[in-house]
Amino acid sequence: MSTSAQIGVSGLAVMGRNLARNFARNGYTVALHNRTVYRTHDLVKEFGHEGDFVPTETVEEFVAALERPRRLMIMVKAGAPTDAVIQEFAPLLEPGDMIIDGGNAHFADTRRREKELRERGIHFVGTGVSGGEEGALHGPSIMPGGSTESYASLGPMLEKISAKAKDGAPCVTHVGPDGAGHFVKMVHNGIEYADMQLIGEAYQLLRDVAGRSPAQIAEIFRAWNTGRLDSYLIEITAEVLSHVDAATGKPFVDVVLDQAEQKGTGRWTVQIALALGVPVPGIAEAVFARSLSGHTALRKASRGLAGPKAAPLGEAEAAAFADRVEQALYASKIVSYTQGFHEIAAGSEEYDWNIDLGKVASIWRGGCIIRAAFLDRIRAAYDARADLPSLLSDKTFAQEIADAQDDWREVLVAATRQGVPTPGFAAALAYYDALRAERLPAALTQGQRDFFGAHTYRRTDREGSFHTLWGEDRSEVEA
Amino acid sequence: MSTSAQIGVSGLAVMGRNLARNFARNGYTVALHNRTVYRTHDLVKEFGHEGDFVPTETVEEFVAALERPRRLMIMVKAGAPTDAVIQEFAPLLEPGDMIIDGGNAHFADTRRREKELRERGIHFVGTGVSGGEEGALHGPSIMPGGSTESYASLGPMLEKISAKAKDGAPCVTHVGPDGAGHFVKMVHNGIEYADMQLIGEAYQLLRDVAGRSPAQIAEIFRAWNTGRLDSYLIEITAEVLSHVDAATGKPFVDVVLDQAEQKGTGRWTVQIALALGVPVPGIAEAVFARSLSGHTALRKASRGLAGPKAAPLGEAEAAAFADRVEQALYASKIVSYTQGFHEIAAGSEEYDWNIDLGKVASIWRGGCIIRAAFLDRIRAAYDARADLPSLLSDKTFAQEIADAQDDWREVLVAATRQGVPTPGFAAALAYYDALRAERLPAALTQGQRDFFGAHTYRRTDREGSFHTLWGEDRSEVEA
Repeated sequence: MSTSAQIGVSGLAVMGRNLARNFARNGYTVALHNRTVYRTHDLVKEFGHEGDFVPTETVEEFVAALERPRRLMIMVKAGAPTDAVIQEFAPLLEPGDMIIDGGNAHFADTRRREKELRERGIHFVGTGVSGGEEGALHGPSIMPGGSTESYASLGPMLEKISAKAKDGAPCVTHVGPDGAGHFVKMVHNGIEYADMQLIGEAYQLLRDVAGRSPAQIAEIFRAWNTGRLDSYLIEITAEVLSHVDAATGKPFVDVVLDQAEQKGTGRWTVQIALALGVPVPGIAEAVFARSLSGHTALRKASRGLAGPKAAPLGEAEAAAFADRVEQALYASKIVSYTQGFHEIAAGSEEYDWNIDLGKVASIWRGGCIIRAAFLDRIRAAYDARADLPSLLSDKTFAQEIADAQDDWREVLVAATRQGVPTPGFAAALAYYDALRAERLPAALTQGQRDFFGAHTYRRTDREGSFHTLWGEDRSEVEA
Repeated sequence: MSTSAQIGVSGLAVMGRNLARNFARNGYTVALHNRTVYRTHDLVKEFGHEGDFVPTETVEEFVAALERPRRLMIMVKAGAPTDAVIQEFAPLLEPGDMIIDGGNAHFADTRRREKELRERGIHFVGTGVSGGEEGALHGPSIMPGGSTESYASLGPMLEKISAKAKDGAPCVTHVGPDGAGHFVKMVHNGIEYADMQLIGEAYQLLRDVAGRSPAQIAEIFRAWNTGRLDSYLIEITAEVLSHVDAATGKPFVDVVLDQAEQKGTGRWTVQIALALGVPVPGIAEAVFARSLSGHTALRKASRGLAGPKAAPLGEAEAAAFADRVEQALYASKIVSYTQGFHEIAAGSEEYDWNIDLGKVASIWRGGCIIRAAFLDRIRAAYDARADLPSLLSDKTFAQEIADAQDDWREVLVAATRQGVPTPGFAAALAYYDALRAERLPAALTQGQRDFFGAHTYRRTDREGSFHTLWGEDRSEVEA
């Protein structure tokens, strides 16, 4: 039995298998392990020629096959299965060894596991891996948390197998301690939800208000993809929209059931934002839009509700409207990234992670779902000013929104009047207008809370907390 | 030492004290207990003339003072303090005794506690109590969970001390087993957040777009309060808006710092809705609006962002606009209650609570913060059809929205063009338009998910799950 594998992968479903192959293709000797042994052998049979694999059949064999300190990557289901695998391996490991969890764990679980294993001298590296099957094989975006020491050992390997941005930089960075990697991966997914929802709304507007066909809209997205919206999601939107269903000859998008599914990271992003007190309405609306779409009984019962039917524009106006939609989409996108980065900053603050936001943008430029030219500009914004209060405080973004906003507002006016649901665009604009507002009705809210619950309020003109004796003479007392 | 107290209250801060007085004023003998003894004696000194109190100094004395089966109400802070008090009392109790938790516990904690105590034969009754200090004293809305057996013993007492609706019905019902009461109280608070946010947006629109002063807006709210919006929150809004700050002579609402605070139940309502897959964007926007208002650095940094400044309407249009705002507020309110009741129905389904939604509406008619004439109509809607898919399926509400929607849309058009943030109104309309949509862009979302993650999709024309081989010849395979 060889004991020279530089990395081991346990859990050889599609993601684990492709990561193992990726390591091997990059010259690493990779120990393999899977609960059901045939998967291990199948991998070697099918892809053994790609590099050095060390197939093993038991956990003991697997651990013995790894050079020390051991680097042991687990690619199993989040939750209880991950805990079970950790419990199986941990007793066999020695201080200095590393367990890398490349699944979609909740960052709070990662924090718990990291703490438990740290007490036993084992490094637990919760790692976000984005890019799906293809990314895992050809180069994912990788977001490792965990100790600095573990990154010193793992980093070079991850940098080798990761995607590379156009400037050649590897799409991996040590995000921060314990759960930081999984946290950032979670927010990445939340941003992806928002991106997809905004694209969906743009599509629906082009369809209903501009009266374009899916094929025509695919062309519009292709054109957008040559500009500032250049991104993987815009690119594949064009692919999906131009696809024709072979069975019916209809546009593919018209034969797909319009009930969106979700796995959970989008929902977590919103739940955690609520816990942190960070407003992320753009991400929330995207998550809600998916769940709403799946409530078939409710939708069916609501079909007859009154509302306008969109009356498509003429040819000339349709083209101009499409340009406006691009502005609305871009402005809304800036806003949803602003919210996502705010959440990362708040998480970093709450858990003392010291996350470099520019670096986060930078590692999303390749390999992951939201990869976009746009991320270069986010990186530039944080490079120019690391303590940027928000993306909207960056001059370039602020100027772009300033230029976009008339169109953005008019697109929303059309959607509102014509009854096309645009929760994402609308939430983004409301967030923008609320942030820039001189005064918010929150003052009234505080007055109401003081009235019904004696919750007190603060004043604009002096320090302290105050309560008005509403039920008595309405004089003010210090609280 | 008397052993004849029918109820005991432990925890004599303002809510506990007022509930104890309420019981005593209604003829019950009330045992009193508080960790710091002076509060107990203060209560008797100050309010002893109101009824029969049995002050006690130790937990043993307190428990001994109660008739059997014991009814022991704890009014302490949610979380660890509640657990601590339960641990203190439980060993002193006997099978059949009841612990009533009248604090704002998370329903999941209530479920856990109920289960633990049930195993010891003790009834744990997690009970929502709404109405603040005044409600606690003069008649709150009460939402008890727990066993049917405990309600048989407690119900008559709760009915006596509760608020009474205009038709004389007590504002209390046995909501359902274990955590049902605290769950419903939580959603009540979430709805309250949404109500307050919508009122805030209406106020801001009347201020900025209609150019009305706080005093004038108070009059508008007073007028609304004589119509279908008749409710406690509308009533107190008029009181807050008409109040003038004595120190400055300015409208009170203008000297209050516009940073809204929150305690947590609104946030929980959204977090749980996400877990249950129920879209509650109206409540979410209200929670986010509060947290946004408190991000002072972000707001300060965003002051200079480009946007229109509202140009107040002339006198004649202003009055017409105010009427439109009433329509928008009412329509949005129907939508946010729809979302709240959907969440209760989903919770009831998930936890087998068998909650009667009409009864829930009915006990909110008096004593609680959201009490409104409107709730009679919700009760009527569920009385007419217990399995109503949603409030929007009720003919009366559907017709009212149909009548309101042109104005609703035009109010949003004005807000959008004039840069007044209306996240609540906008989210409500988007929800409404999404529910009634023939097709949603969720089909595109599913196509994208299948493209980048092989997540599969369903078809409109036949059963099964499908995957398109996007990277190959784009043929379709069954998944």
